[in-house]
Amino acid sequence: MIEPLSDALVELLETQHRIDRLRGEAIRRVGAGLCDLAYANPYDGPEPSTVDAIGEALQTERTLDLQYTPYGGATITRRLVAGKLRTDSGLDYHWRDVVMTPGAMAALNVVFRAVRPDRGTAEVLMITPCWLDYPLYLTNLGLRPTVARVDRESGRLDLSAVEAALSDRTRAVILSQPANPTGVVYGREELEALADLLGSRPVPPVLISDEAHRDVHPPDVEVCSPAEVYEQTCVVYSFGKSLFIQGQRIGYIAVSPRFEGREEVRDLFADLCRTMGFCTPTALMQLAVRKLIEHRPDFSSLGARRHEFATRLRELGYGVPPGEATFFLYPSLEGHDDLDFCERLARRGLLVLPAPLFHDAGGFRISLTGTSDMMDRALDVLEAEA
Amino acid sequence: MIEPLSDALVELLETQHRIDRLRGEAIRRVGAGLCDLAYANPYDGPEPSTVDAIGEALQTERTLDLQYTPYGGATITRRLVAGKLRTDSGLDYHWRDVVMTPGAMAALNVVFRAVRPDRGTAEVLMITPCWLDYPLYLTNLGLRPTVARVDRESGRLDLSAVEAALSDRTRAVILSQPANPTGVVYGREELEALADLLGSRPVPPVLISDEAHRDVHPPDVEVCSPAEVYEQTCVVYSFGKSLFIQGQRIGYIAVSPRFEGREEVRDLFADLCRTMGFCTPTALMQLAVRKLIEHRPDFSSLGARRHEFATRLRELGYGVPPGEATFFLYPSLEGHDDLDFCERLARRGLLVLPAPLFHDAGGFRISLTGTSDMMDRALDVLEAEA
Repeated sequence: MIEPLSDALVELLETQHRIDRLRGEAIRRVGAGLCDLAYANPYDGPEPSTVDAIGEALQTERTLDLQYTPYGGATITRRLVAGKLRTDSGLDYHWRDVVMTPGAMAALNVVFRAVRPDRGTAEVLMITPCWLDYPLYLTNLGLRPTVARVDRESGRLDLSAVEAALSDRTRAVILSQPANPTGVVYGREELEALADLLGSRPVPPVLISDEAHRDVHPPDVEVCSPAEVYEQTCVVYSFGKSLFIQGQRIGYIAVSPRFEGREEVRDLFADLCRTMGFCTPTALMQLAVRKLIEHRPDFSSLGARRHEFATRLRELGYGVPPGEATFFLYPSLEGHDDLDFCERLARRGLLVLPAPLFHDAGGFRISLTGTSDMMDRALDVLEAEA
Repeated sequence: MIEPLSDALVELLETQHRIDRLRGEAIRRVGAGLCDLAYANPYDGPEPSTVDAIGEALQTERTLDLQYTPYGGATITRRLVAGKLRTDSGLDYHWRDVVMTPGAMAALNVVFRAVRPDRGTAEVLMITPCWLDYPLYLTNLGLRPTVARVDRESGRLDLSAVEAALSDRTRAVILSQPANPTGVVYGREELEALADLLGSRPVPPVLISDEAHRDVHPPDVEVCSPAEVYEQTCVVYSFGKSLFIQGQRIGYIAVSPRFEGREEVRDLFADLCRTMGFCTPTALMQLAVRKLIEHRPDFSSLGARRHEFATRLRELGYGVPPGEATFFLYPSLEGHDDLDFCERLARRGLLVLPAPLFHDAGGFRISLTGTSDMMDRALDVLEAEA
């Protein structure tokens, strides 16, 4: 009476399982010497101020502070997030526009579920390369993922590709800003052009802006939220990236204050947090982030590392498309099978993620969050395999 | 392009929304004097040892300890849970049989999703009265909830009702042990009789045992897990109840070691934690519960309160079915509309949950977790409305 996953879901998971097996083999071969740069794990650890904020939240004297919070999240936390969004975007976010979720994974699933029609086929257009699990969630929810790739040279939005991929069944478009894995920060003008294109559709689709890396960029770079230029936007955020606590599962959905039917939409999202079983982030983390709303990671060393690493890779003959934000580089590969190449790196003790995990081909993603020693070893391996 | 919830889901949520509004009105009327015994919020707070365990976990020197854990959970945590289950049940649980989830809500949704066939109508039989959101989850996942009530006098399983409700479409049966809201602990013999009935079906359904209150009972009461008597059992657990930290979102699914296709089933559950967006409990709580595996709440004062409160209610003319575990009493009402009655209590400053929230009629659930003063005031209100 247990039903196996559908073939489509099994296929989506299989690429990932192959990487998991690769990781297992690499650990057995090189042990603690493994240079695992597949994910943005901060090998230098979170900042002490972040851990302190969690510790202080734990010392609450209020006996109900570790109990249930309302669906949608604790009001004070929502107020603080809305205030931050108002400052950053200039949009008039109300606290109810913010629905706290246990991480971006839950937030994405709630929004995807909300755009699914009761019957009939519906599509969600993914700007690729994109985070590996978007199509997994969509397929599980009965939505059909379609794709439009960014420009291969510049990493910028390719509006003709978007236009060609849109159909009458397209209920939503999802992109990440800044873009994961490329590190590109889309400019206001190209987002405005996208908004014009989407707004010209008979029924404008929802734009889902995955802003998990919004605070991971150099201080002199402006990150424009698509919500500033397109009314039907839902922003998805995770605190895990900028605070280096990815295992602490706290994020949110923010419904644009200009979203049509805004009140119903935000209430629907809170109801879906309950109906789908996501509930809320932990009570403790909702207390802790109140003290961390203004936190920005120190990007100086990461920015310098990004520049140096990209320069060295180019010297070694790798293509490295421009990009200035996130924890990642996304070098391109020519004349290699992506998975084979990553397997060769793994045999030398370096783990990275091949382009097919991002629904793309011809490259790999490497995280810049290792220790200095790990990054040096990674360069040695990439030199040997160049 | 946003789709409202289906009528069926709206209807399921509406009863709850009515209670939420009642609560809002009651707070406006009586303010801090509100006696909110709707949920098992521990007004005396969690035990210091629980908070200390979380604080100690936070003081880890391992820089990756607050990062992602594998889907299914951290291996050490799973090992400790499996060890505890082996001791309690005598069954040979392997650590992989335990899939850590962010609370019981996620665990239930994963198991429900796993029994859903790719096409066709399927049913899940709920032993009622039952936790309010079971049918919400089932309906959202496209499963049809059916019901079999326990015996009205004794609160025991009514096998003829179960037999009458089973059909060829029944993929799973769900009960809570100990039972929420009645507080009844099902005995080994009645569970064996249920197992015989289910096992005699052409295709035996999965038995889902919601054991969120497994550790909330007097020390002299044996709580038999249905997994001990029926092979096709999945146990769902939450640490939030026994540790008084319901907002900390950590629980698990345990697949019976005797489950047919056990290896595939547990791997499926871990894959579903990813595919559905539940991910894992927070890294911090997975560390903390390692120190709390053997923790049992001190039931002595709760047990005494249960006895006194039930006695007083009976003196006031309320029917109180027998029950010995959980935080709740479930008095019966005759000649009252359940919701009207609860609204009258709310106007006097006492919040309880009416039977319709448990897919039942003719009673209400009251939590015994208030302060002594709150419990005294609750009795005054119940006396006035008796």
